[in-house]
Amino acid sequence: MLRVIQVGLGPLGRKMVQFIAERPRVKVVAAVDPAGGIAGRGLAELCELGGAAADSVAGVVVSADLPAALVAAASFGGADVAVLTTNSAVARVQHQIAELAAARLPIVSTCEELSYPWVAHCEEAAFIDEVCKEHGVACLGTGVNPGFLMDFLPAALTGLCKNVRAVTVRRIQDAAPRRVPFQQKIGAGLTPAAFREKVAEGSLRHVGLPESVHLLAAACGWELSRVEETIEPVMAEAEITGGYRPIAPGQAAGVEQWGRGFVAEPGGEVTGASREREVVTMQFRAAVDQPDPRDEVEIEGTPPIRSVIAGGVNGDIATCAVVLNMAPVVAVAPPGLHTMLDLPPATVGR
Amino acid sequence: MLRVIQVGLGPLGRKMVQFIAERPRVKVVAAVDPAGGIAGRGLAELCELGGAAADSVAGVVVSADLPAALVAAASFGGADVAVLTTNSAVARVQHQIAELAAARLPIVSTCEELSYPWVAHCEEAAFIDEVCKEHGVACLGTGVNPGFLMDFLPAALTGLCKNVRAVTVRRIQDAAPRRVPFQQKIGAGLTPAAFREKVAEGSLRHVGLPESVHLLAAACGWELSRVEETIEPVMAEAEITGGYRPIAPGQAAGVEQWGRGFVAEPGGEVTGASREREVVTMQFRAAVDQPDPRDEVEIEGTPPIRSVIAGGVNGDIATCAVVLNMAPVVAVAPPGLHTMLDLPPATVGR
Repeated sequence: MLRVIQVGLGPLGRKMVQFIAERPRVKVVAAVDPAGGIAGRGLAELCELGGAAADSVAGVVVSADLPAALVAAASFGGADVAVLTTNSAVARVQHQIAELAAARLPIVSTCEELSYPWVAHCEEAAFIDEVCKEHGVACLGTGVNPGFLMDFLPAALTGLCKNVRAVTVRRIQDAAPRRVPFQQKIGAGLTPAAFREKVAEGSLRHVGLPESVHLLAAACGWELSRVEETIEPVMAEAEITGGYRPIAPGQAAGVEQWGRGFVAEPGGEVTGASREREVVTMQFRAAVDQPDPRDEVEIEGTPPIRSVIAGGVNGDIATCAVVLNMAPVVAVAPPGLHTMLDLPPATVGR
Repeated sequence: MLRVIQVGLGPLGRKMVQFIAERPRVKVVAAVDPAGGIAGRGLAELCELGGAAADSVAGVVVSADLPAALVAAASFGGADVAVLTTNSAVARVQHQIAELAAARLPIVSTCEELSYPWVAHCEEAAFIDEVCKEHGVACLGTGVNPGFLMDFLPAALTGLCKNVRAVTVRRIQDAAPRRVPFQQKIGAGLTPAAFREKVAEGSLRHVGLPESVHLLAAACGWELSRVEETIEPVMAEAEITGGYRPIAPGQAAGVEQWGRGFVAEPGGEVTGASREREVVTMQFRAAVDQPDPRDEVEIEGTPPIRSVIAGGVNGDIATCAVVLNMAPVVAVAPPGLHTMLDLPPATVGR
């Protein structure tokens, strides 16, 4: 039985608790969230668990801080791993990680920037790595994206190749059948001006594309000279009616982001002052009534590989699943900060 | 620089040497094959290397046994890993592995049965595990199939799921564009009687399907009650002209094998004395002019996943690539016998 402390009980943390409660061989023994209206509540009620799922967390009350949660976990003989779902930014989770590590808890987190923090957040990464090694625990940031579809999966598929020249990854999502908050999050129905405003305030962007580019480059042995990220609205050309509300022509139907990684190369194209070649190309596109949704990996290599998951992978479910499936791996992994390249693969039945 | 001792210099071992010679950061420092006409020959000449590839193995002569190869490797400061490409049967490689382990060499092998030997060859597996632990080295059996497409890849894809009810894997290959020996190996052009004769003598069967079934079941947490394997010719209904020679109606165009894994289940179908349910289904089909060649994984789970590599993966290249990409992982892995579930994923640039 893997005993989990759930840290963070926003929508994602609550879903994580629901998933864990459905599964044998894993159990939430304590939970932490200092937020008003959450701390002090029964976990089963907060996470809307019923039946056997509710029974599995009987008596577990949300603690306001980690020391209290550790006391609660002690009545189950302690915890084996912490699941951390509090924030997308490494800078915001690093001290939470340090506190968990000091309690000798391995950590698996949905923090997007933590999936490959070694470039854009190298100071925080070094701090986390050091504190985890000091206390003898492992730490991993993962999820469906970043964490799996646009980084781990293409990286693993390069294992089939004797050489690779470039990799293109596309995650194309049709938002029409998705929850209203998802459609709102991708900017569906916004005017171009409102879309840009939300981008500027940071509430619209999918976080993790540069991290995925860096992880895939590391898997291919490429030292990137530059990483580029763009974000644009997907504009409706005609009226779109598949979503939770009609989208008029000229409004945004969703968002498109590109991540690109380049290597310096004598024979490459001239861009600015240097010659370089694009080796990693990632397209993230989520829009209402988007045709041909899919998760696609195209490897220009020997042999060439083109892998397609038609319809695409449901991210709401898969993020929790990936984290949950990695939890037993992280619980026994060597101390330090890892990426999905460093550990055995997540599988459903560990 | 990863220093390799190549053990076994049949067609696969020679291709492995060619791949290594093309790659930076890895180098063949010694080679072993006792066969007459091979031992004593220069590696570059034997493996038909030219230019820089030949230079990378300058002076390397095939040794007749491991002690001689170790002496040769010593002039490069020793070796980091052995690549073993001698036999498909665990019973035939176990003592070769013991000899390599005693020389403190980690081992990565193309031995098909070694990819998951814990069920069908559990005594040999225990022996290998013990001897590797005794000498502090890791051992892995891998390749494209078994090793990747029908086991590691579907296992890793279940990492996206909160639960999985069943998995179907299909490897459908069109033999028309493949080498003549491949077409011959799958029985193309044989009469049904000649086909069955080759099956009976063991020279036609793809080895590894039960091992793939067992690895995938382990990844899903299923204890199998039974594994079934079948082999049949793919019969030509009309004349087939795409191959190296015409195939008449009523002759074999290739081979089809099925592997199936079952779990005992109260509500399952009645088969013989017990109720059971098929949870793993694997189809391996290789035939001349086979339409829609592909590597396909279909996961019946939450969420459902259907992944297709259209055209399929070229196995000649990919087997060497997977082994070569896992070599640096195995070189530093913990002691003992591993499977692809136990180690970080192969990637092209490690």
